[in-house]
Amino acid sequence: MEKHYRDMQDFEFTIQDGKLYMLQTRNGKRTGLAAVRVAIDMVNEGLITKEEAIFRVEPNQLYDFLVPRLVEKGEKIEVLTSGLPASPGAAVGQIVFSAEEAVKVHTKGAYEHIVLVRGETTPEDIAGMEVADGILTSRGGMTSHAAVVTRGMGKCCVAGAGDCVVDEAKKELRVKGKIFKQGDYISLDGTTGRVIAGQLKTLDAQPDDPDLVKFMSWVDPVRRLQVRANADIPRDAKKAVAFGAQGIGLCRTEHMFFAEDRIEHMRTMILADNEKDRRAALKKLLPMQRSDFAGLFKAMGPLPVTIRLLDPPLHEFLPKREELLVEIQHLEDTKPRSPRLKSLRTLLARVEELHEQNPMLGLRGCRLGITFPEITEMQARAIFEAAVQVKSKGGDLHLEIMVPLIGSIEEMRNQAAIIRQVAEEVFAQKGSKVDYKVGNMIELPRAALVADEIAQESEFFSCGTNDLTQTTFGISRDDINNFLPAYLKAGIFKQDPFATLDQRGVGELVKTAVERGRKTRPTLKVGICGEHGGDPESVKFCHRAGLDYVSCSPFRLLTARLAAAQAALEEKTGAAHTNK
Amino acid sequence: MEKHYRDMQDFEFTIQDGKLYMLQTRNGKRTGLAAVRVAIDMVNEGLITKEEAIFRVEPNQLYDFLVPRLVEKGEKIEVLTSGLPASPGAAVGQIVFSAEEAVKVHTKGAYEHIVLVRGETTPEDIAGMEVADGILTSRGGMTSHAAVVTRGMGKCCVAGAGDCVVDEAKKELRVKGKIFKQGDYISLDGTTGRVIAGQLKTLDAQPDDPDLVKFMSWVDPVRRLQVRANADIPRDAKKAVAFGAQGIGLCRTEHMFFAEDRIEHMRTMILADNEKDRRAALKKLLPMQRSDFAGLFKAMGPLPVTIRLLDPPLHEFLPKREELLVEIQHLEDTKPRSPRLKSLRTLLARVEELHEQNPMLGLRGCRLGITFPEITEMQARAIFEAAVQVKSKGGDLHLEIMVPLIGSIEEMRNQAAIIRQVAEEVFAQKGSKVDYKVGNMIELPRAALVADEIAQESEFFSCGTNDLTQTTFGISRDDINNFLPAYLKAGIFKQDPFATLDQRGVGELVKTAVERGRKTRPTLKVGICGEHGGDPESVKFCHRAGLDYVSCSPFRLLTARLAAAQAALEEKTGAAHTNK
Repeated sequence: MEKHYRDMQDFEFTIQDGKLYMLQTRNGKRTGLAAVRVAIDMVNEGLITKEEAIFRVEPNQLYDFLVPRLVEKGEKIEVLTSGLPASPGAAVGQIVFSAEEAVKVHTKGAYEHIVLVRGETTPEDIAGMEVADGILTSRGGMTSHAAVVTRGMGKCCVAGAGDCVVDEAKKELRVKGKIFKQGDYISLDGTTGRVIAGQLKTLDAQPDDPDLVKFMSWVDPVRRLQVRANADIPRDAKKAVAFGAQGIGLCRTEHMFFAEDRIEHMRTMILADNEKDRRAALKKLLPMQRSDFAGLFKAMGPLPVTIRLLDPPLHEFLPKREELLVEIQHLEDTKPRSPRLKSLRTLLARVEELHEQNPMLGLRGCRLGITFPEITEMQARAIFEAAVQVKSKGGDLHLEIMVPLIGSIEEMRNQAAIIRQVAEEVFAQKGSKVDYKVGNMIELPRAALVADEIAQESEFFSCGTNDLTQTTFGISRDDINNFLPAYLKAGIFKQDPFATLDQRGVGELVKTAVERGRKTRPTLKVGICGEHGGDPESVKFCHRAGLDYVSCSPFRLLTARLAAAQAALEEKTGAAHTNK
Repeated sequence: MEKHYRDMQDFEFTIQDGKLYMLQTRNGKRTGLAAVRVAIDMVNEGLITKEEAIFRVEPNQLYDFLVPRLVEKGEKIEVLTSGLPASPGAAVGQIVFSAEEAVKVHTKGAYEHIVLVRGETTPEDIAGMEVADGILTSRGGMTSHAAVVTRGMGKCCVAGAGDCVVDEAKKELRVKGKIFKQGDYISLDGTTGRVIAGQLKTLDAQPDDPDLVKFMSWVDPVRRLQVRANADIPRDAKKAVAFGAQGIGLCRTEHMFFAEDRIEHMRTMILADNEKDRRAALKKLLPMQRSDFAGLFKAMGPLPVTIRLLDPPLHEFLPKREELLVEIQHLEDTKPRSPRLKSLRTLLARVEELHEQNPMLGLRGCRLGITFPEITEMQARAIFEAAVQVKSKGGDLHLEIMVPLIGSIEEMRNQAAIIRQVAEEVFAQKGSKVDYKVGNMIELPRAALVADEIAQESEFFSCGTNDLTQTTFGISRDDINNFLPAYLKAGIFKQDPFATLDQRGVGELVKTAVERGRKTRPTLKVGICGEHGGDPESVKFCHRAGLDYVSCSPFRLLTARLAAAQAALEEKTGAAHTNK
């Protein structure tokens, strides 16, 4: 039967009154590891061709090779509750209840493995999330901050586990009557969403599995799409290269500013009420950014590196408005003469000025660099100085500097002029040049519509389909969970549009950007970055839309490489293969 | 010279050494009132044709006829400062510092004319704004809440007058050392932005000016575009008809819920945690909505009325999150046993649940009616019951029920089914039918792109270009002021895209919606509502894009009618006329 169906079979039969009844057969379900082994075996046995083997593995199954797994053989485990399987893999470690505490116990070496437990996470938790093995949150969905960031980090996350009461003040996690304190062990299964008491064993990621390596050696020559990774720091960049990245498609420079030694300078810069003070604070950030970039460039060698200029609204770097309001009220009630009150009020005044009704649609992206050109200047200088420095030590670099949230040629012209001028200055000062391109994100509907104009100034496009989905649908990724359940239940959405690209709407804008951009500049390189870059259906769409590359989190690289190969084969044969 | 240039001339000359030098001549600048008189005179004198006369008046100048003006003849006036001319006209009245106070003094009849002075206004101030003659704010731009709402009301507003310090706690307005208390007189000139001390005289609006009536009798037969008004209440609807509206293009039902006797039921509805309690609260709102609609239908007679279902996010109807947080902190500090503390905490919990990062992109529009179908049911029932009631008294009605924030056919199918089912139920119960259509707003890029699909379910489109501009550019109308000045200064924007429609980007999506919608349904009626519907350049674009009507605030109706006539003539002659 395996010969007939050319696949491993899951076969049902029964014996009744001494008679054998053959009931049904279907292709057997299997894990990613098993799927790869079966495919290789069948090629070795001459049952299928290598091209057929490429369709015997679901791209998402390859994720299994890149994340640790729980080992549950024979043990009795205590499943406390289940949340959303927000980021696959496993984490076993000791509980902490704040990002600061996570950093503290990590720095002291107090806990070997950390599980960060929070109501929900915010951008300020990044440092703590980085040192944790896994994250558990009681609130938030598949697109919450915790979910998105951990998927980017390839770190296990169980999100929105509603049965968990996270008492951050008491440092307690309560689940159905059970109480866990800081330091208690817990195990998370990000692939199923299970939260398990105690310390289970884990099996490490296996990117060097010989069968996997063999399988990927069949996959890669077939694809046309290049596959890059989203990575901000050298450690992730190295991992990306190990997992087969052909470059960095998205380096988010803002992540560098949340680090403890930098956020103060960042805040000083933001709180400055004149250009001179802003420049003084930026000057302190410059050497830090430069060394970040130098590290990244060294890690990537001759592979292209795409650096996105500062994107988020500035108030993300400041204390939260409502926390300030509450603290001020408390001091007024209890210590009205506290000197802290005055400084808090000053801080609040600036926070109020920067407060926005809809930060996603506010002063961010290129609007920052246009309003405060000195920010773009500093970032460009850090990039080019780092590049010249790495080149002087024999490095070969290919930089792509990317301006976010462009919606018009006028914006692009403004920012590109600053970047190119700083490049000339640095090259003249250092007597050395590096290869670089200036391009922009396509993440607003208007950018796609006027791509022919923008391409006059822009040498490459990267489609930021997270934001493009937000604006095309008019749906905030942070707020979709308030109605996504009703939408899925009513069949209005077949799937979360932030997980799988909406080909009819968002996809039309991507195709428009490609067509109009290349009409102006036939050599225009176009890629995609963000969540969709690692989703198999979306990767296949990108192939058909004529993109040059997709960029995804390092842990999605195998998936993207396989989906790209399948897309190329589907194009060749003129029909979509299925594994059914 | 007037004969040669066929227009009134502004002529410069000088006499030197007894010799007359003729320096230059140009078409004379004039007010709207003068422009109309000059045009009529020149037609009467046979100098120009009626068609030429139509181009001798700038559409925006006609606004002068519909708003009161300050009379300044011979008086010495004390200009305190200037703000933005956010909404033209004049207001002279006594100062109050809160919307509640405005309602109070208005109800008591304490002040005949009220000027509401605020740092900035919010949706909760609507009732107070309605009873005020004019609004002065110290913060906010041309697209701030105060500016947009007052333009809709045809009410004078000076916004963002930065020299004004509005101390709402002390009930004081301080301007350059001068102090004004509640009850003091102040005069606002919304056409120039001047804030003037004391009580100036005003001249009323003159919609019946005989010259104006004559001029409009030449204008109206020329245009193809219908002109409708945005109006929510019978008073505005009657005004709109008097100003020449051919229907209501946008009735915003949420404005009805902010009234004092309704907001409590609205809050009960929102705070309900199950469908039963929600339905009970909605049942109390039903008769109120029904009587609102009945009033509107009576006022409009046989003219079409477009009613938009509930649009804003629910937290707009609840107390502000940060105010709750601060009050809770204060009670905890000072009266920890207060019973109010418990109820505030319960309220806060629901407010936190509804809190959104980007409310503009959150649970609003049709997402409300899909998540809570009982809201759509109640609104549809109120509409149809009111319609049947008015019809039974001899009324002839043409209803258009409009679903906001549609982005897919699935959403439209869901909401249209509810509306049509309620209609059948009401018609069966009452034994009477009314003419109605079900349609939707086109205010998301995706709606324009999939308009061919949506038109299967939708009988008309109304382009909501405020929101469409927000999503196409990725710019929040509430937050643009943080970078608009830098953008205008750098020449990146030639004008505020919320004031004049961006033809290249937003306009392409409008045209796409028209073309694709009519491909499915050739009889599809398409209009536009929102700020752009009263902007001359935007109205002309709507003509060229093949729209059926524009809808604007009543005070923009003359402007829109004239712009529509000019557009039709420009099309006929194949070139844009100018008045230069």
